[in-house]
Amino acid sequence: MPTILFAAPSLWPEYREALPQALAEAGLAGDVVTEAAPDQVDYIVYAPSSPLQDFTPYTRTKAVLSLWAGVERVVGNPTLIQPLCRMVDPGLTEGMVEWVVGHTLRHHLGMDRHIVNPGHVWDPTCPPLARERPVTLLGMGALGTACAAALRGLNFPVTGWSRTAKPGCLHGEDGLRQALATAQVLVTLLPRTAETENLLNADRLALLPRGAVILNPGRGALIDDAALLAALDRGHIGHATLDVFRIEPLPPDHPFWSHPQVTVTPHIAADTRASSAARVLAENIRRGEAGEPFLHLVDRQRGY
Amino acid sequence: MPTILFAAPSLWPEYREALPQALAEAGLAGDVVTEAAPDQVDYIVYAPSSPLQDFTPYTRTKAVLSLWAGVERVVGNPTLIQPLCRMVDPGLTEGMVEWVVGHTLRHHLGMDRHIVNPGHVWDPTCPPLARERPVTLLGMGALGTACAAALRGLNFPVTGWSRTAKPGCLHGEDGLRQALATAQVLVTLLPRTAETENLLNADRLALLPRGAVILNPGRGALIDDAALLAALDRGHIGHATLDVFRIEPLPPDHPFWSHPQVTVTPHIAADTRASSAARVLAENIRRGEAGEPFLHLVDRQRGY
Repeated sequence: MPTILFAAPSLWPEYREALPQALAEAGLAGDVVTEAAPDQVDYIVYAPSSPLQDFTPYTRTKAVLSLWAGVERVVGNPTLIQPLCRMVDPGLTEGMVEWVVGHTLRHHLGMDRHIVNPGHVWDPTCPPLARERPVTLLGMGALGTACAAALRGLNFPVTGWSRTAKPGCLHGEDGLRQALATAQVLVTLLPRTAETENLLNADRLALLPRGAVILNPGRGALIDDAALLAALDRGHIGHATLDVFRIEPLPPDHPFWSHPQVTVTPHIAADTRASSAARVLAENIRRGEAGEPFLHLVDRQRGY
Repeated sequence: MPTILFAAPSLWPEYREALPQALAEAGLAGDVVTEAAPDQVDYIVYAPSSPLQDFTPYTRTKAVLSLWAGVERVVGNPTLIQPLCRMVDPGLTEGMVEWVVGHTLRHHLGMDRHIVNPGHVWDPTCPPLARERPVTLLGMGALGTACAAALRGLNFPVTGWSRTAKPGCLHGEDGLRQALATAQVLVTLLPRTAETENLLNADRLALLPRGAVILNPGRGALIDDAALLAALDRGHIGHATLDVFRIEPLPPDHPFWSHPQVTVTPHIAADTRASSAARVLAENIRRGEAGEPFLHLVDRQRGY
């Protein structure tokens, strides 16, 4: 019976029942504990905030299973040589799709001028149809692919750009230029790596069509904050709705808070849900016990 | 070659080219005119605002083709004994789906508190998933069915209620009670008839769960305005987003304008688009010439 160390104390109340239940549903016996002798631990369930930072003594651990989709705060830990798996939670994907589709439709329909309309203006100008509103997604992993499918289901023409060549996606620097040039709505869903940091800098923001809307539910560091503010100020970017920031909570004096063309949402686009995430953990423990390849294994070279 | 009288002068600029083009695409010869001797007219393209109100002299007219989906201002005209067809425009349906899905997601995600957040509050409470947010649609015609499919595609549990028995829909007074009881979001898409006027009165609003949101892109008369305002004031209804009103434009002194829990959109949920609507007109003219049954024929008993 494998010993599973749950090493994310702040999340324990959510998983205390959900994880044993998911193991039982998967037909697995497993001992889920919050303390154990390191050399007795078979699997570690992990979050970056965990006090566990030295993985050296965990000599028989078969995998470290992250509760977060983003592992940029984990992957650089030199003591972590065990296989590391990201969380790809169907609940997280669903929440992300809802946020991305919801805010795309909000901007597409021009909702804000009706939600805030102190002059009681009745202007029955219809928006174009979704089929006339090109959307570009940067990042076509599990989340990007799910968002693209949902947006296409509502008739939005979707262009996907991926850092690696994938069928049906643009890639590379030329592909990025092409993807940005048509984007009336741009959604950034890339992982944070050395290569994606400040991907949307002043030069690349200038490639977007005038009035484009940016939605960032990915990582704050994908966008150069100062370049974005400048592009908003001169009207080149029409609006930015941002869910992630370099520092969270977003500091009270950050100019994003008061900029009229910026909407701040408080890192709610994608939350891991214990019930569905526990089933993903159980599946990876089942695979580890059966000697099968792990799901969502992090590639240390790519960083995600 | 049939003579087609375009009897909606204000819309002529949009259809002047679109209608002949759609006829040509359908392989039809047809003479589209804005004036003709009544006894020479084969088809009338019509809107309620038309100066043509006496259909008596149009003795050989095979059909009156409405440019509007709602025919309540037309169907009571006693001189109109010719077959009357409603407009079921794919562009209109798409626009309606976008408005309904967009505002459902807006309320589901609680967007308004982020769009208007003068206190710069960072509250990372996640909304539930769409699969946990029951939506009820009243009216399961072409528009309601399309909205239900799109909402289900995003995982919302959708209950449909129809005035007539239809597979997969609730109906009747008991069905209506059941449909209202679970509706965290209620969408009203019924036609306006004597039976649907004030369908949402004080008694029926009281059947909704506390905090329910109402979206009305159907007809203003479906809801008792005073009962809705009272239910909003006591917090039983959480919000109402209304696109249609008994008088349009909504009069400047109407309390909907200034109620903090009401959003007014200016009858933009569904606009007929000339390019796609012209193709529907052409198809019905083709059917009339071929002796085939018309599409979207109005049932005078039901009133739509």
